[in-house]
Amino acid sequence: MLDTEPLDIVGIRREVDAHLADFLDGKARAAAEHRLPGEVVEALRGFLFSGGKRVRPVLCVIGWHAAGGAGDAGPVVRAAASLEMFHAFALVHDDVMDDSATRRGRPALHHDLAARYRARADAPRRGVHAAILIGDLALAWSDEILHTAGLTPAQFQAALPVIDAMRSEIMYGQYLDLTHTGHPTDDLDTALRIIEYKTAKYTVERPLHLGAALARPEAGILSTLTGYGLPVGEAFQLRDDLLGTFGDPHDTGKPVLDDLREAKHTVLVALALQRADPMQKQQLRALIGRRDLDRDGAERIRAVLEATGARDAVEHMISSRLAQAMHVLGAAALPPPVVHALQAIARSATARPS
Amino acid sequence: MLDTEPLDIVGIRREVDAHLADFLDGKARAAAEHRLPGEVVEALRGFLFSGGKRVRPVLCVIGWHAAGGAGDAGPVVRAAASLEMFHAFALVHDDVMDDSATRRGRPALHHDLAARYRARADAPRRGVHAAILIGDLALAWSDEILHTAGLTPAQFQAALPVIDAMRSEIMYGQYLDLTHTGHPTDDLDTALRIIEYKTAKYTVERPLHLGAALARPEAGILSTLTGYGLPVGEAFQLRDDLLGTFGDPHDTGKPVLDDLREAKHTVLVALALQRADPMQKQQLRALIGRRDLDRDGAERIRAVLEATGARDAVEHMISSRLAQAMHVLGAAALPPPVVHALQAIARSATARPS
Repeated sequence: MLDTEPLDIVGIRREVDAHLADFLDGKARAAAEHRLPGEVVEALRGFLFSGGKRVRPVLCVIGWHAAGGAGDAGPVVRAAASLEMFHAFALVHDDVMDDSATRRGRPALHHDLAARYRARADAPRRGVHAAILIGDLALAWSDEILHTAGLTPAQFQAALPVIDAMRSEIMYGQYLDLTHTGHPTDDLDTALRIIEYKTAKYTVERPLHLGAALARPEAGILSTLTGYGLPVGEAFQLRDDLLGTFGDPHDTGKPVLDDLREAKHTVLVALALQRADPMQKQQLRALIGRRDLDRDGAERIRAVLEATGARDAVEHMISSRLAQAMHVLGAAALPPPVVHALQAIARSATARPS
Repeated sequence: MLDTEPLDIVGIRREVDAHLADFLDGKARAAAEHRLPGEVVEALRGFLFSGGKRVRPVLCVIGWHAAGGAGDAGPVVRAAASLEMFHAFALVHDDVMDDSATRRGRPALHHDLAARYRARADAPRRGVHAAILIGDLALAWSDEILHTAGLTPAQFQAALPVIDAMRSEIMYGQYLDLTHTGHPTDDLDTALRIIEYKTAKYTVERPLHLGAALARPEAGILSTLTGYGLPVGEAFQLRDDLLGTFGDPHDTGKPVLDDLREAKHTVLVALALQRADPMQKQQLRALIGRRDLDRDGAERIRAVLEATGARDAVEHMISSRLAQAMHVLGAAALPPPVVHALQAIARSATARPS
C-alpha cells in the first residue's frame, strides 16, 4: 500500500462478495453431487446478498493495513469474508430469537422458510427450525472459509485466539441481551455491557484485531485499535437504538416498533428510567413491552424519551465516543490511508440514517 | 501401544471428561472475571455431565491408534474432547427442534432453562432462546477446544477438512430429518440417507477419520475405517429407531412416543408402509404424527410394524450391517487391540438396551 493511496473500500467489499459467492457455488455443486437439498445454499445465498454493508470484513482488511500488512491481500480478504458468513449465522439466529418479521426490508429467514411449508399447520415452527439449522451451517461454513483462506500456519495460529474470543463475546452479549429483554430497568451499566459485548467488540474491535493479527502487529497496535474500536462500536449501537425507536422503517428495513415491543434493555430506556418522574416512569412501564403497542403508544413513549432528555443524552454519548475515537486515531502512528478510512467509517457508523 | 495390551476405553472416557471439566472451569473463571453470567457455563456443564457414553471421542482415539498413532496421546484426547462439546451443541439444538421434553432422563435443556424464568409468561420461549444460544456457544467452544488441544501444525491442518466435512454432513442430515419429519413415506432410500448423514458419518466414520488424520495415516486406512464405520453407524441408528418405538423409556431416558408423535421418517416406518396392506396403511397414516397419540394408539402402530414384518426386517438390517463391519475388521491389517475395541463397540452399539 502506498502511503498516499486511499484504501479501496468498495473494492474490498466486491472481493469479499466474490469470495462468498464462489464458496456458495462450491457448496451448491457439492450438494447436487451428493443429492443433498439445494435450498439450504440458496436460502443462505439469498440472505447474504439481500444487503449488508460488509463492515466487519472491511474493518478486518483495514486492520491488516493498520498493522503494516503487505504482499498478497487475497488470503486476508478470504479470512475477512469468513466474518460475513459468521455474521449471517448471528443475524439468522438473532431474528429467530427476537421473532423479527423482517430483515433488510425482506421477510426474516425463518418467515421466508416457513412459506415453503405453508401447506402444513406447523409451517411457522418448521421455518424456525430450518432457520436454526441454516444458521448453524453458516457458523460451520464461516470456519471452513477461514480454514481454506490460504493463510500461512503462523497467520492461522495468530487468528484463532481472536476468532475464539470474538465468538464467546458475541454469544455472551446475545445472552445478556436475551436475559435482560422484557424488563428494562434504569441499570445503565448493564445496558452498556450488553452494547460492549453484543456490538462494540464483535462489530469493530475484533474484526480490526483479526486483520492486525494476520500481519505480525507491533506492540501497541492492538490497543490502539481497541481504543478506536470500542467507542465507535458503542456509538454505532447507540445510533442503532435511536433509529430503532425514532427511525423511519423505510430507511432501516426493520419495523420501528420491534425494540419497544420486545422491551430491549437499551441505554436509551435505562437513561429515561433514571430521569423520569413517577408519572413518566409509570407510562414507560405500562407501554414498553406491550406486544400490541401501536403508533399512538409508541408516540407517547417517544415523548417521554425526549422530555426526560434521554434522547439528547444518547446523542451526546454518540458524539463523545466519536470524538474519543478520532482522538485515538489522531494520536496513533497509523498509515494515513488507514486513518482516513477509519475516520470515514466512524462518521458513517454514527451518523448513518439507516 | 503394545500390540497385546487392550485399549483402555474407560481411561479415555475419564481423560476426555477431565479435559471438558478443566475447559469449563476456565470458562467459569473467565466469566466471573468479566462479570458475565455464570449460568451459561453451569447449564452446559450440567448437560455434558448428566450422561453420555463419549462414543465419538472414544472412536477418535481408537482411530488414532488404528492409523499407528504413537507418542503423547494428550493432544489427541483433547481434540477428541472437542467432538463431545460439538455433540452437546447438536443435542441441545436437536432437542429444541424436536421440542423434546427430556434428555438423558432429565428435562431437556430448553425446559431446564425455562424453569429459571417461570415467573414470566414467556418462560418457554425464553428457555428455547437461551438453549439456542448455549448450543451456539458449545459449537464455538468445541472449536476452541480443538484450537487449544496442542496439536502440531501438521496435525491441525490434517484435522480441519475432517471437521469441516463432519459439520456439513450432520447439519445436512438434520435438515433432511427436519424436512421429512411429519410426513413419513415408503421412500426407503431417503430414510437411509437421513441415517447416513445424521448418524453414520457423524457418530462413527468421521470421529475415526479425525483420529486417523492426527496420525499420518497410510493409504487405505481411511477407507477401512469407512468400511467399518458406516455400517456400524447405520446399525446404531436403526437400533435407536427400534428403541424409540419398542424400547422401555426407563432404559432409553427418552419418552417412547416422541418419534411416533413427531412422525419421524424412519427406515422402520418406510418399510412398514412398503409392506402394509390398505387397511394397515390407513392405520399408520391415521396414527403416526398425532400429537395426542396415547399408549393404545402406539400399541396399534407397533402391532402393524410387527405384522408387516418391518420390525424383523430392521433387525435383519442391523445384523447384516454388524456382520459387514466385522468382516471389514477381519480383513484389515489393524493392530489387534484396535480390532477388539472396534468389535466391542460394534456389538454394544447394535445390541444395546438403551
